[in-house]
Amino acid sequence: MSGVWGNKLKISVFGESHSAAIGVVLDGVPAGTKLDLDAIKAQMARRAPNGGDFSTPRKEADEFELLCGVMDGVAEGTPICAVIKNTNVRSSDYAQLKDVMRPSHADYGYRMKYRANNDYRGGGASSGRLTAPLVFAGAVARQLLAQRGIDVVSHILSVGGVCDEHFGTQIDGSLAEALKGEILPVIDENVRERMKAEIAAARADGDSVGGRIECAVTGLPAGLGDPLFDSVESVLSSLLFSVPAVKGVEFGSGYGMTAKRGSEVNDCWYFDDDGNVRTRTNNNGGVLGGISTGMPIVFNVAIKPTASIFKEQDTVNVATGENVKLSLKGRHDPCIVVRALPVIEAAAALAIYQFVKD
Amino acid sequence: MSGVWGNKLKISVFGESHSAAIGVVLDGVPAGTKLDLDAIKAQMARRAPNGGDFSTPRKEADEFELLCGVMDGVAEGTPICAVIKNTNVRSSDYAQLKDVMRPSHADYGYRMKYRANNDYRGGGASSGRLTAPLVFAGAVARQLLAQRGIDVVSHILSVGGVCDEHFGTQIDGSLAEALKGEILPVIDENVRERMKAEIAAARADGDSVGGRIECAVTGLPAGLGDPLFDSVESVLSSLLFSVPAVKGVEFGSGYGMTAKRGSEVNDCWYFDDDGNVRTRTNNNGGVLGGISTGMPIVFNVAIKPTASIFKEQDTVNVATGENVKLSLKGRHDPCIVVRALPVIEAAAALAIYQFVKD
Amino acid sequence: MSGVWGNKLKISVFGESHSAAIGVVLDGVPAGTKLDLDAIKAQMARRAPNGGDFSTPRKEADEFELLCGVMDGVAEGTPICAVIKNTNVRSSDYAQLKDVMRPSHADYGYRMKYRANNDYRGGGASSGRLTAPLVFAGAVARQLLAQRGIDVVSHILSVGGVCDEHFGTQIDGSLAEALKGEILPVIDENVRERMKAEIAAARADGDSVGGRIECAVTGLPAGLGDPLFDSVESVLSSLLFSVPAVKGVEFGSGYGMTAKRGSEVNDCWYFDDDGNVRTRTNNNGGVLGGISTGMPIVFNVAIKPTASIFKEQDTVNVATGENVKLSLKGRHDPCIVVRALPVIEAAAALAIYQFVKD
Amino acid sequence: MSGVWGNKLKISVFGESHSAAIGVVLDGVPAGTKLDLDAIKAQMARRAPNGGDFSTPRKEADEFELLCGVMDGVAEGTPICAVIKNTNVRSSDYAQLKDVMRPSHADYGYRMKYRANNDYRGGGASSGRLTAPLVFAGAVARQLLAQRGIDVVSHILSVGGVCDEHFGTQIDGSLAEALKGEILPVIDENVRERMKAEIAAARADGDSVGGRIECAVTGLPAGLGDPLFDSVESVLSSLLFSVPAVKGVEFGSGYGMTAKRGSEVNDCWYFDDDGNVRTRTNNNGGVLGGISTGMPIVFNVAIKPTASIFKEQDTVNVATGENVKLSLKGRHDPCIVVRALPVIEAAAALAIYQFVKD
Repeated sequence: MSGVWGNKLKISVFGESHSAAIGVVLDGVPAGTKLDLDAIKAQMARRAPNGGDFSTPRKEADEFELLCGVMDGVAEGTPICAVIKNTNVRSSDYAQLKDVMRPSHADYGYRMKYRANNDYRGGGASSGRLTAPLVFAGAVARQLLAQRGIDVVSHILSVGGVCDEHFGTQIDGSLAEALKGEILPVIDENVRERMKAEIAAARADGDSVGGRIECAVTGLPAGLGDPLFDSVESVLSSLLFSVPAVKGVEFGSGYGMTAKRGSEVNDCWYFDDDGNVRTRTNNNGGVLGGISTGMPIVFNVAIKPTASIFKEQDTVNVATGENVKLSLKGRHDPCIVVRALPVIEAAAALAIYQFVKD
Repeated sequence: MSGVWGNKLKISVFGESHSAAIGVVLDGVPAGTKLDLDAIKAQMARRAPNGGDFSTPRKEADEFELLCGVMDGVAEGTPICAVIKNTNVRSSDYAQLKDVMRPSHADYGYRMKYRANNDYRGGGASSGRLTAPLVFAGAVARQLLAQRGIDVVSHILSVGGVCDEHFGTQIDGSLAEALKGEILPVIDENVRERMKAEIAAARADGDSVGGRIECAVTGLPAGLGDPLFDSVESVLSSLLFSVPAVKGVEFGSGYGMTAKRGSEVNDCWYFDDDGNVRTRTNNNGGVLGGISTGMPIVFNVAIKPTASIFKEQDTVNVATGENVKLSLKGRHDPCIVVRALPVIEAAAALAIYQFVKD
Repeated sequence: MSGVWGNKLKISVFGESHSAAIGVVLDGVPAGTKLDLDAIKAQMARRAPNGGDFSTPRKEADEFELLCGVMDGVAEGTPICAVIKNTNVRSSDYAQLKDVMRPSHADYGYRMKYRANNDYRGGGASSGRLTAPLVFAGAVARQLLAQRGIDVVSHILSVGGVCDEHFGTQIDGSLAEALKGEILPVIDENVRERMKAEIAAARADGDSVGGRIECAVTGLPAGLGDPLFDSVESVLSSLLFSVPAVKGVEFGSGYGMTAKRGSEVNDCWYFDDDGNVRTRTNNNGGVLGGISTGMPIVFNVAIKPTASIFKEQDTVNVATGENVKLSLKGRHDPCIVVRALPVIEAAAALAIYQFVKD
Repeated sequence: MSGVWGNKLKISVFGESHSAAIGVVLDGVPAGTKLDLDAIKAQMARRAPNGGDFSTPRKEADEFELLCGVMDGVAEGTPICAVIKNTNVRSSDYAQLKDVMRPSHADYGYRMKYRANNDYRGGGASSGRLTAPLVFAGAVARQLLAQRGIDVVSHILSVGGVCDEHFGTQIDGSLAEALKGEILPVIDENVRERMKAEIAAARADGDSVGGRIECAVTGLPAGLGDPLFDSVESVLSSLLFSVPAVKGVEFGSGYGMTAKRGSEVNDCWYFDDDGNVRTRTNNNGGVLGGISTGMPIVFNVAIKPTASIFKEQDTVNVATGENVKLSLKGRHDPCIVVRALPVIEAAAALAIYQFVKD
């Protein structure tokens, strides 16, 4: 099964890049929840291709229609279905790709899995476009979390070789608001222009570039999550790896801890001045033994360079059985990191919502 | 829910470090499967504390008893329950720890989650001991995979600052066998002694050290896995992050790709001499769009340094509300990487088995 | 969670009686399945209100639009979403019912569950209208079953006091075809007119009448289903009790066996002339110990009289806190049994499909 | 999957009639729950064969051992595993039955499903013995329900042709206590001796007899359950049909309503003297549209006559391919209804607990 996820809030995502529509069914939004539809639209807009500097020249409004489950902006408690029409599809761009497998794309695996019955145009169901319903669902989850004082915020940790600094042990509200207001949010303002330059350079070369997104969930009390199979890390990573182009996930200092001694990275507990139990450092990213510690949940994801590049590449034509050259055309993001950021936040919101108490 | 996982093969893990027993119920082993019980024991022995160089001085045989589901070594098709008695428990070692939270351990989160009703001795259900039932289940899954020509093999990619080389695009059978025969398996034989020295140094200092384990699943055909929520990466990472001390997971080149251009890391397809579709490189670790490509599934995990160290640490006594000093006693692994390796393989086998066709 | 069901084929149903649309997402239809859309439409038409003798005067075409997952009539393997617009809604009929609870309807429970946020018009999500997406899903499942030689057929076992005869131990193809061709299918042709008269009499009285539907699944091999929790009976009954107005389910002779001796009702095995293992009788309805026996799966459901009647009834106004009288207006089926029949078949097809082997 | 059930409280049942042990893992008992172990034992004793008038001459204490999850009688919050050793097995009784299929038993379906690898002795996993772990789990669920003022009570509605009266619209506490104190609980005391005589007569004839159990869940507030797939009826029936020998389930007046007019059986709402919303009748058994109405949940199950009888029966030997005669020996209940009653209550408690709020 590919399209159904969750327990407390269950989501069913459907659609392909060039189908009539894509969408999502949300089952479990509490009756009486006042939905801020403008806030949902704002999240959708962050992800939508806007033709701007960091994005594909393709523009899609990602306007959603609510088929059911909401009356006068209030959740009825029954499943909510949101549908987004696919309007701006140029299927002709993909005619050459029926049998030619794009490198580092899902084409070949899909073809084998679906025995060539899948809609290959625009990547079909493997398209990044399917993250739009995920952002819709995540925007709803964010609102449910906000009711409980839980916030999700993120920044671009790196683009190519240009790195921002990491979140500290505390993420204060003004930083959170500042990051939310930026298209390319960074903690160290000095790196923004260099990141833009890195993306522009990749675009100029007909190439692409990868990066990392660091995300924090603040306000989550200690004691949530489960040992073993439903650890906070398990549930989060499961959704994060559902986002196309994510190839790595680490919590807190993650890989950085592997070359260290325990005495260097253990997070030591202390009572702060208000009598709260906290840790001096947060190398474990707010999770120990699968359970939240009360510190911010901090993780980052590795986003590979956009697979679609305009340079000529070697590949195969599976119909003719020949090794061939491929030069992609069309409209592609030179760096998917910027548009992936709201998707990562959406995934985080959905994952964390599974753990909160009613 | 913490203890139930899976679909095609469903496992229920139970027990705590100092309970009467720990164990696992496996639901879904096909009727008629001839189980190689010696091979299961061998996997269990790889994980069990053996008092050797890399391990805690504590020795536990991890002998399992089969309560049901197996007759004359053959799976009946009904649930299999394996129970492992907890024999060598020294609860007195933990008397001081009822209210004192060990740094980087699950103690505090557990206490909050279970409102102090959990058995804190030996870490209770957060103990690494709970990986024994996981290894049992994984050992069964390995045998089911082997019937289909699928193998799981791994090596220690690093201990502290000492690094082994990565798996190549192909993992041949002789390498796989060599790795399986070693307690501290590495590809580059030259690093083994340096890794041992790194562990010995940490032990001598009353400290611990982290590392990485790289694992490969070979023989998996293209087209397995699901887009979106049940991607190969999602299912694998979900189980991997259930293993204590795992703080990061990356597939293929993972984080290494984030600083690269698409043209540098895209995996280009080609027909090999036998007409098989393959990629020249395997930066994506055998998964694209959540689906297997037919290349080896390659991932590695970040293992943090063992949280238990003998150096004095700052922490809190939650009963008295005071900041206190803690000096741990008892028996602990200076580097959990070596014993975590068979657990990672077990998790990989269980995760991959979800995807194979009957 | 209310709207998601299944494993091998997972369905998510959404919508309310008066929402913009209702629909269903089907996840798990095998790639390459040629869907007979006309056959699906025919099943939908059996359920849709047609204004005929046994039905509400309301007419709704129940035309579905496929948003994704199907290309040129062939399933792509990705989720299929079918949407049915709600066109013929007369919300004014329901204005009086906001606070007045209709007897034997879900109004009060819904109001309590959803804290009065649910759309009460037309019964909201409790409306029989939500069985339209179920019939769509069931029609797809039927086609998947037909590929394996499995058929689902049913007849009206009773309307009020008028009873048809039961299925025998074998249901031959000609009977199955005859039943499928009738709006009011019965085995004993003599009872059809009497059933019609029973319905007409109830309608004339502004009243309603109940009945029973007997359903058989033929062609299912022995050995399917699971002991304990996923018994054939468990999975079937779970879906059957999801159909509004179903208040009882029995397998084979069901309640009839409770007054009998074992020697009277035990199904004795024998080898038939072709060497097949069969039973002389089928009192167990083709299931023993939760597993199929190879005999037809036979069950029947109790359908209560339509709750909506035109006679004045006692009830409460929960806003005013008063006991009140209620006289329903609008358009209602005097006997829902006829239109429930294709829904029961759909539920049966969906349930049984969970058990078949690939 | 056969052995795992539930969501809020997840249970994994394992074992076979003649395996070393049977048992259950319960995942989800809230930390800090004080378990009344004596009350659990009392429930187990109701189900255990006691060699008395209504039972098999076989005696089994059904003593359970708690392997984990409970400390000093208090649930830790982690999974609880209870194991019951199989002590009193006379496997020789079953030697003749390897290839001879007992009429109305699961033997043949199991053999086909498990390709003859299952342990056929004592019915293996299809044995009624597997209801012991279910009763253990149900006894825990009962205690969790009792904390919320919810009670589960039942009586024998019929044995053969001898019928007790039905529950009324209210079940007062003194009736509940009286029923709980009886081995053969009935509302109308006059029928008890006649029921005993019915059972004794069947036993004397080497035959068996069926019956019905009516069960009520009191104290459940209105508004629990879900529309569609997780209706109260769906979840209850799914578990009830997991209990061996159950062949029918009806809620409230169930089948009795099918021959009636709506005006005769609609449950009319009224405000009682305390201002509570109630219904004059409870023909719907406390559930409308899948949701609880606040009236008692009332259902009854049809229990077929014990399949094991001592009269000679026709059947097949699947090894020789011959039609044969079978005369069963051993120890069997002439009427399983009496011992099934606590199992039905356990199933009800487990099912209802899924719906209650924390």
